[in-house]
Amino acid sequence: MLLTTRAYYCEKCGTPMQRAIPPGENALRDVCPKCGYIRYFNPIPVVGTVATYEDKVLLARRAIEPRYGCWTLPGGFMEINETLANGAVRETIEETNAKVSIIDLFTVFDSCSSNNISFFYRARLDSPEFSPTSESLEVRLFAEDEIPWEQLSFQTVRLTLQAFFEDRKKGSFTVHRFSI
Amino acid sequence: MLLTTRAYYCEKCGTPMQRAIPPGENALRDVCPKCGYIRYFNPIPVVGTVATYEDKVLLARRAIEPRYGCWTLPGGFMEINETLANGAVRETIEETNAKVSIIDLFTVFDSCSSNNISFFYRARLDSPEFSPTSESLEVRLFAEDEIPWEQLSFQTVRLTLQAFFEDRKKGSFTVHRFSI
Repeated sequence: MLLTTRAYYCEKCGTPMQRAIPPGENALRDVCPKCGYIRYFNPIPVVGTVATYEDKVLLARRAIEPRYGCWTLPGGFMEINETLANGAVRETIEETNAKVSIIDLFTVFDSCSSNNISFFYRARLDSPEFSPTSESLEVRLFAEDEIPWEQLSFQTVRLTLQAFFEDRKKGSFTVHRFSI
Repeated sequence: MLLTTRAYYCEKCGTPMQRAIPPGENALRDVCPKCGYIRYFNPIPVVGTVATYEDKVLLARRAIEPRYGCWTLPGGFMEINETLANGAVRETIEETNAKVSIIDLFTVFDSCSSNNISFFYRARLDSPEFSPTSESLEVRLFAEDEIPWEQLSFQTVRLTLQAFFEDRKKGSFTVHRFSI
């Protein structure tokens, strides 16, 4: 089986890679015996939004695996040459066609057993305009008592929504950190 | 010139890659015409600490490029299968041989022009024991008025130290976000 965190060939010169501990390091890496290229695998940042219009939160129903058909906060992999907030805005457009203004960082998730770290930003919908995209079956605004808690996509989405409604009741928002 | 954010050969099967927009996406990627593998490049998380013993902050003088010889907060690239905080502790050991206890996330840096996102955690040295490693020429505790501001390694280090001393004066720490 091909492993996602293994490089079998050098992506720079095409030579079969070897497993070795590079000089000055202490972990096995995939290293090119010809050109010396070392392939590092690092956690990938995921960015998304808790975007509201009036008192309602924007969710999308996933048209892609994993968790096809589940409701999610809009989000996805951060690209190079963008900030976390830029990425969160871009992913929100890609999944909901909604234009949002970022307010602030809200939740940070890391994990020993996942290769992602996730960031959700609080945001405001500029207007109540949104629609499904190739990545979503349905897009909707939900009041707190309408959230489909049993049909949410990921733990990060559930914890972010819970923290959001709790902070909103308190009347002040902070940055929440979770190791999951 | 070989670009760091380009894959010229498939790291799974060794076939020369092609530039293409994968179905359902809107950006050019390096795609394998044989096995279909898509090579994504994402920002890489960097993790470090602002570690104190009594009122002093731990800095290391870099024994590696870039910024060889400059003073830095201990930090480096996050590995897969660790949390941000675990990575910050590990990097602190690797650069200073100091064991630290994490207090909380302190600064978050992103950028449109760098492929890193950086995170510094406030931490405490368990004891005033530290020493240079293969990555550091010198390791020292600095009081606020001793910080070598003109010989610091990176903007992230300077901004983190500034925010740290400001928050300490105020008597309360928050999570600071910077787009640099």
